[in-house]
Amino acid sequence: MRLTTLLVLLAFQGFAQTEDQKQIKAFYDTALTQGNSYQWLNYLSNQIGGRLSGSVQAEQAVNYTKVQLDSLGIDRVWLQPVMVPKWVRGTPEFAYIESKPGLTNNVPVCALGGSVATPLGGLKAEVVEVLGIEELKKLSREEVAGKIVFYNRPMDPTLINTFQSYSGCVDQRYSGAAEAVGMGAVGVIVRSMNLRNDDFPHTGAMSYGDLPVNQRIPAAAISTNGADLLSTTLKLDPDIKFYFKQNCRQLDDVMSYNVIGEIRGTTYPEEIITVGGHLDSWDLGDGSHDDGAGCVQSMEVLNLFKKTGYRPKRTLRVVLFMNEENGLRGGRKYAEEAKKRGENHIFALESDSGGFTPRGFSLDCSDANYEQILGWKSLFEPYMIHSFVRGGSGADIGPLKDGKMVLAGLRPDTQRYFDHHHAENDTFEHVNKRELELGAATMAGLVYLIDKYGIVSSPKIKG
Amino acid sequence: MRLTTLLVLLAFQGFAQTEDQKQIKAFYDTALTQGNSYQWLNYLSNQIGGRLSGSVQAEQAVNYTKVQLDSLGIDRVWLQPVMVPKWVRGTPEFAYIESKPGLTNNVPVCALGGSVATPLGGLKAEVVEVLGIEELKKLSREEVAGKIVFYNRPMDPTLINTFQSYSGCVDQRYSGAAEAVGMGAVGVIVRSMNLRNDDFPHTGAMSYGDLPVNQRIPAAAISTNGADLLSTTLKLDPDIKFYFKQNCRQLDDVMSYNVIGEIRGTTYPEEIITVGGHLDSWDLGDGSHDDGAGCVQSMEVLNLFKKTGYRPKRTLRVVLFMNEENGLRGGRKYAEEAKKRGENHIFALESDSGGFTPRGFSLDCSDANYEQILGWKSLFEPYMIHSFVRGGSGADIGPLKDGKMVLAGLRPDTQRYFDHHHAENDTFEHVNKRELELGAATMAGLVYLIDKYGIVSSPKIKG
Repeated sequence: MRLTTLLVLLAFQGFAQTEDQKQIKAFYDTALTQGNSYQWLNYLSNQIGGRLSGSVQAEQAVNYTKVQLDSLGIDRVWLQPVMVPKWVRGTPEFAYIESKPGLTNNVPVCALGGSVATPLGGLKAEVVEVLGIEELKKLSREEVAGKIVFYNRPMDPTLINTFQSYSGCVDQRYSGAAEAVGMGAVGVIVRSMNLRNDDFPHTGAMSYGDLPVNQRIPAAAISTNGADLLSTTLKLDPDIKFYFKQNCRQLDDVMSYNVIGEIRGTTYPEEIITVGGHLDSWDLGDGSHDDGAGCVQSMEVLNLFKKTGYRPKRTLRVVLFMNEENGLRGGRKYAEEAKKRGENHIFALESDSGGFTPRGFSLDCSDANYEQILGWKSLFEPYMIHSFVRGGSGADIGPLKDGKMVLAGLRPDTQRYFDHHHAENDTFEHVNKRELELGAATMAGLVYLIDKYGIVSSPKIKG
Repeated sequence: MRLTTLLVLLAFQGFAQTEDQKQIKAFYDTALTQGNSYQWLNYLSNQIGGRLSGSVQAEQAVNYTKVQLDSLGIDRVWLQPVMVPKWVRGTPEFAYIESKPGLTNNVPVCALGGSVATPLGGLKAEVVEVLGIEELKKLSREEVAGKIVFYNRPMDPTLINTFQSYSGCVDQRYSGAAEAVGMGAVGVIVRSMNLRNDDFPHTGAMSYGDLPVNQRIPAAAISTNGADLLSTTLKLDPDIKFYFKQNCRQLDDVMSYNVIGEIRGTTYPEEIITVGGHLDSWDLGDGSHDDGAGCVQSMEVLNLFKKTGYRPKRTLRVVLFMNEENGLRGGRKYAEEAKKRGENHIFALESDSGGFTPRGFSLDCSDANYEQILGWKSLFEPYMIHSFVRGGSGADIGPLKDGKMVLAGLRPDTQRYFDHHHAENDTFEHVNKRELELGAATMAGLVYLIDKYGIVSSPKIKG
């Protein structure tokens, strides 16, 4: 390259950098001083609460967020209908360890999402403890039949990214009951997916696969302290019994909605950039981290574009997906409709890992696009955003994946996430205002760069 | 470089890396699975509580940590006597805004550390609000004389590193009273150094400089919500009055101790590496983040060396400094004694920024040493440690600085620190076990590398 060309390029780059730095700083400054995310979350969490698909609260959340998006003065806000499953917990669950007849210790449990109820009077049986499905499969049918299977593999505390620890355990919760049925078990108790020792049981989705309804057995999560107590008690006497009672049920599907808002692009309106989180949550807490935070951060991205007076060249869309937790119907519907209309989605970004201090992004895209985004790294470093890794993005935007577009997930600090995930203590007071706002600004920064520069063509696709 | 030389070097580097990676992973694994830091902190916070210099609790903390260090089986544990100031808060403070005679609003205040008391019946006066010392100095003496000066400059929310926001405000707290005396003020109220809006007043050190005792005026912090209320009320009516009452006092100095433990180096025992935090705290909360966390993390560093069976080549010392908050006597004493004995300190690391997720280190050293440490960056990245910046280290180790040694501060995430700093809500439940443990392991990693490789000679010194 000739020196003059180089200098021209450097000068241009210098100028471009300055403009990008300025706009990104405007996002952060605005989020931290005039942001709306925290007050939106306050309303969602404290005025509405847990928003399980099909619940009154989920409906209220649809209405509330639509009104709030309308008030931003963006180009269009609409509801996208989607049928969702409706599972209800019923009365609070109850459980105890029975060391001897009449000698019992109550322990905190909660039904797993999608589980069937116990018989009306509850279920009492002996317990077989295993550290996972593989270990269960090594047992004989006689060792399991008529018993409650107790899956007690803890999350691995030595993994720095706690989502990896979660991945290493969650099969027990999701498929544990279906596997146990095959061995003649009558019920399933799963150690909560939590790295702390505490008294909160953590719910979450489970599936019986294609098992007929009359063969399904009830499944519940037990708190980590409860799991330790049960395990210790079993070591002292393997013949003790466990009792639990739950009257959850699966009702018919009901109509619900994805909430969508958009700012139409000035230059390439047909190229669509989507940011989102999921509006539904579990019912035990108020769903502040999972995923009220991701919803209000996504709304905030559009708000930051408006407040800083930056008009995107491409169409910028916020989508609050319904039913991520127990069906992913909203994510599937959005992708299905996009395909039906022949929409050209170039980038989708989801925030669904809690409202903690942002650390970076996980990127699901081609090598070329990954390199392109890595080139922007220095723009984020002043905001302590250092981690740009390849990996999954978010469950709701997954169905959009077409081998060409870029999918990304905001990656906040993970240390505290599973203390709260799907449990009664996923509540507003555990979200820090600044951490939440920094996440929204970080998302806006990446959206801005993608909007401004587009995505480079991607000859070589990697997962 | 010839190819063969390069290959030999690469192979060597590969080997060395692997050994370092292994040892550092051992630190993290051990901290996260068999660490003691969290239970030590639990005791310091919940069995002892706030540990203001000269208090019974500070004495208890000295005894407790000495016993705990003794139990680690390290080579030597001792107490280093140091005289410390003793300031006591007395009965809880009380304050209100008087809009009209008889029409009052109570607001939360607390005496600043080192302040004199109000008269026995309290102090009531009109208020002059300023955004800092500079603004005060622009007023005439008549505008200030006989009034309470209300320093209300908030921390700048747009700075990503909240310690920078703190630095930009803390002169109001530290020197505000001395400045106000010169203008004839009768008292000082300072907005709490807190980025949140809440009801906790935040104390902290203040100084009257060389002002004679009989000229000193009482100074208190007001909660951020209280400050906003006072400011709004003043805007409606500048003639309202403010009342506060506090009966804190400065007593005579008392004897206290730095708590020190060491593992003697095998090869270069005369080269000393010091890790530490400060054992004293303010009295309002239990001092969990400031700086119980730093103390137990520093103790944990030696514990991790012991538990992983790694014997350091150099002498590794933990120092729990007394009296950082209102005197720095422990830090000064330690440096003084080290000099007196001709000790050769090559590295000192302090943790005094809270027990949050570690993000990196701040390094106060020569260019050559900074480059050396940067060369180890990749060893820390798997643990999400990315930030190696130049800057200050820690108050307690500052007096050791000799222009040759390397000083460092652990730098955790800063977003939540000032929510708790010096306030009633600096308590154990706001420390996350994993975050605390990750900090200790991160410290151990850097100490290990310095111990193993030493510090390169430093021809060119920078601050």
